[in-house]
Amino acid sequence: MFITFEGIDGIGKSTQALRLKAWLEKLNYEVIYTFEPGGCELSKGVRELLLSGNIKDDIARLILFLGDRKLHVDKVIKPALDLNKIVICDRYNLSSIAYQSVNLDYKFVKEFVKSFNFVEPDINLFLDIKAEDALKRLENRGHAKDNIESEGVKYLNAVNENYKKLAEENNKIIVIDANKSELEIANLIKNYVNKILK
Amino acid sequence: MFITFEGIDGIGKSTQALRLKAWLEKLNYEVIYTFEPGGCELSKGVRELLLSGNIKDDIARLILFLGDRKLHVDKVIKPALDLNKIVICDRYNLSSIAYQSVNLDYKFVKEFVKSFNFVEPDINLFLDIKAEDALKRLENRGHAKDNIESEGVKYLNAVNENYKKLAEENNKIIVIDANKSELEIANLIKNYVNKILK
Repeated sequence: MFITFEGIDGIGKSTQALRLKAWLEKLNYEVIYTFEPGGCELSKGVRELLLSGNIKDDIARLILFLGDRKLHVDKVIKPALDLNKIVICDRYNLSSIAYQSVNLDYKFVKEFVKSFNFVEPDINLFLDIKAEDALKRLENRGHAKDNIESEGVKYLNAVNENYKKLAEENNKIIVIDANKSELEIANLIKNYVNKILK
Repeated sequence: MFITFEGIDGIGKSTQALRLKAWLEKLNYEVIYTFEPGGCELSKGVRELLLSGNIKDDIARLILFLGDRKLHVDKVIKPALDLNKIVICDRYNLSSIAYQSVNLDYKFVKEFVKSFNFVEPDINLFLDIKAEDALKRLENRGHAKDNIESEGVKYLNAVNENYKKLAEENNKIIVIDANKSELEIANLIKNYVNKILK
């Protein structure tokens, strides 16, 4: 089983992912938690490069995210799935489309991502929130803002809208109201995952 | 038919590629000449980035070359082959392996390149030369040296050796002595291509 967490920054994706992991492990599943970009040893430098903000060319950014994913899928995700582990991944295909198609053509990005034929998640948990609320959350948590977060409210709202558009086209994307409390969200996620486990 | 030119810089790949194109057109074939990186409109920025020397991370460089190729194959090479045109491409898969495996593991790079399943050339024309001789040629032609050329004799000899190693493993790679004259090389190439056309 392959589960992804999606959504803009600062909405508690990794918190929820690690909660879900702990819960699944209590149920005796073998689970790995991983993330993008830079989820495999080889591509730590690619992560740094992407987060540095030095890659201004949109196509180059998109290519780096996708090439990083190719390594991540081949070296980490597929081997774990082949051993019947549950893989929880923080960001995946939908991130590439939602973020990169703010500046590039939505249809082009979607088709380019699809052309890589990466293994499809069984469920994508999209934490839906307005950028204003997400940034408020970040501030409250005293969280450092990286280059993506500093791109501002307008940009992040466009990203969130792209996620919503994707969710309309794909029934494996679950839209979760990220304005709810951490516990409420965790319980919603458990319910969705439980349905698939059965 | 899909033909690639391979080898280190400054050995007349593009001169020979354009000569071959002119000859094939005289024989009434429809031919396109293209090149990597940056062979399609979308990835001009990726080419600039790669030639700027600003991408120091080897995996990031490899990923950018391969992502650029994905676009190039999908948008330029395959559409032309589907229309029964002859495609002549200046640099392709072998460049990625020969160059990138100077710093990265040869087997890893070869397998990573292979995992993209790019359309295979019918013939790869590898212009084989020692870096000392290639640099001398460049100087004589008053040619500007870009970041790759400036990496020096030792590096380029390692690249050339990787090409030779690849040629031993793949009978679709033709080794051509690039110390011969432009005309001699052109005639050798015509002979090889002619055999495949028949």
